[in-house]
Amino acid sequence: MNPNYEKCIQACFECLEACNSCYDACLLEDNVKMMADCIRMDRECADMCAFAVQSMQRNSPFAEQVCTLCAEVCQACGEICRQHEAKHCQDCADACFACADACRTMAA
Amino acid sequence: MNPNYEKCIQACFECLEACNSCYDACLLEDNVKMMADCIRMDRECADMCAFAVQSMQRNSPFAEQVCTLCAEVCQACGEICRQHEAKHCQDCADACFACADACRTMAA
Amino acid sequence: MNPNYEKCIQACFECLEACNSCYDACLLEDNVKMMADCIRMDRECADMCAFAVQSMQRNSPFAEQVCTLCAEVCQACGEICRQHEAKHCQDCADACFACADACRTMAA
Amino acid sequence: MNPNYEKCIQACFECLEACNSCYDACLLEDNVKMMADCIRMDRECADMCAFAVQSMQRNSPFAEQVCTLCAEVCQACGEICRQHEAKHCQDCADACFACADACRTMAA
Repeated sequence: MNPNYEKCIQACFECLEACNSCYDACLLEDNVKMMADCIRMDRECADMCAFAVQSMQRNSPFAEQVCTLCAEVCQACGEICRQHEAKHCQDCADACFACADACRTMAA
Repeated sequence: MNPNYEKCIQACFECLEACNSCYDACLLEDNVKMMADCIRMDRECADMCAFAVQSMQRNSPFAEQVCTLCAEVCQACGEICRQHEAKHCQDCADACFACADACRTMAA
Repeated sequence: MNPNYEKCIQACFECLEACNSCYDACLLEDNVKMMADCIRMDRECADMCAFAVQSMQRNSPFAEQVCTLCAEVCQACGEICRQHEAKHCQDCADACFACADACRTMAA
Repeated sequence: MNPNYEKCIQACFECLEACNSCYDACLLEDNVKMMADCIRMDRECADMCAFAVQSMQRNSPFAEQVCTLCAEVCQACGEICRQHEAKHCQDCADACFACADACRTMAA
């Protein structure tokens, strides 16, 4: 594995976990309707991060482009999550913004 | 590709499409809370079907076991969708039950 | 599902199938070393197409960006496959170029 | 996230990384043909582990069944990798057997 990818893989993995946890928690909230945009974005971001992790791990010729797109998805997911006050949403926003940074650094 | 897999791949692909369409439509419903179990199961089933499709297409040594599990997920998703009267849920239930049958036949 | 995505989903699905079949066949060739770049690219392209299919089916806010990247991966995979004379490689190249076109049209 | 899943998620993530690294390294070996079974199994196992990770993280109703299948795939991948003397194959075998154990414990 390319050692330059290590930090970004770790950030993507933490974001993946935060997004899937937030998705699960949102589906169990009383007011699911209010969480609909967060549920949708959590899945987008989780699937994107899982894709980015595997792309970096297998040294894909497209790893940089994948991370450029991943940064964009993480940024958008973080902005949605930040608007919700539930702890799982705030934690997810933190992980998303950290991952967006790591992906931008990796792709630079 | 193993020609015996053809019908099952097609059924999984139709189920994948129905589950993702139903997921998207459920998130746009007025009463999202009522749809929470359907949203969750649609994602489970979509990801399982996508996994099964790729397993069969690449002639995986685990294709039969994957389809055995896929049949179980499709069956459960179809039963949840069948309980909702929205057309996208009923269509999804039809696709899920057809895919469960195809997966059982393939794995037999 | 967005009806504008229909042709692109179909093209991605055909490319997914061609890439996974080519990957499987390449691994069974006598001269696997000669096929190493094709094996690698087939997996990249299959995973990218599967990702694009699900993005479009669930009406992802990132569907266009995903298809822009998918077009690039398909184009690169088609160019690698075109260099190999095996029928599965030539068939795969055809599917890849058709999918690259469909993704570019969809994202335009 | 279910705290009982934590160790298994970590083991699956380490196995995912080992399998993708081994896959990449195998494709760069001089004798790719000798590595064909390892390349194939590495992809099977990586995709299975990525699927299991997401299933556990989102608290899937099928997490146990997914991990039961994941244990089987990891076991088989570890046995193939163990036969090759390259360090990346031996490291991968270690990660696969550890993950198979973690998945069996989780699913028990």
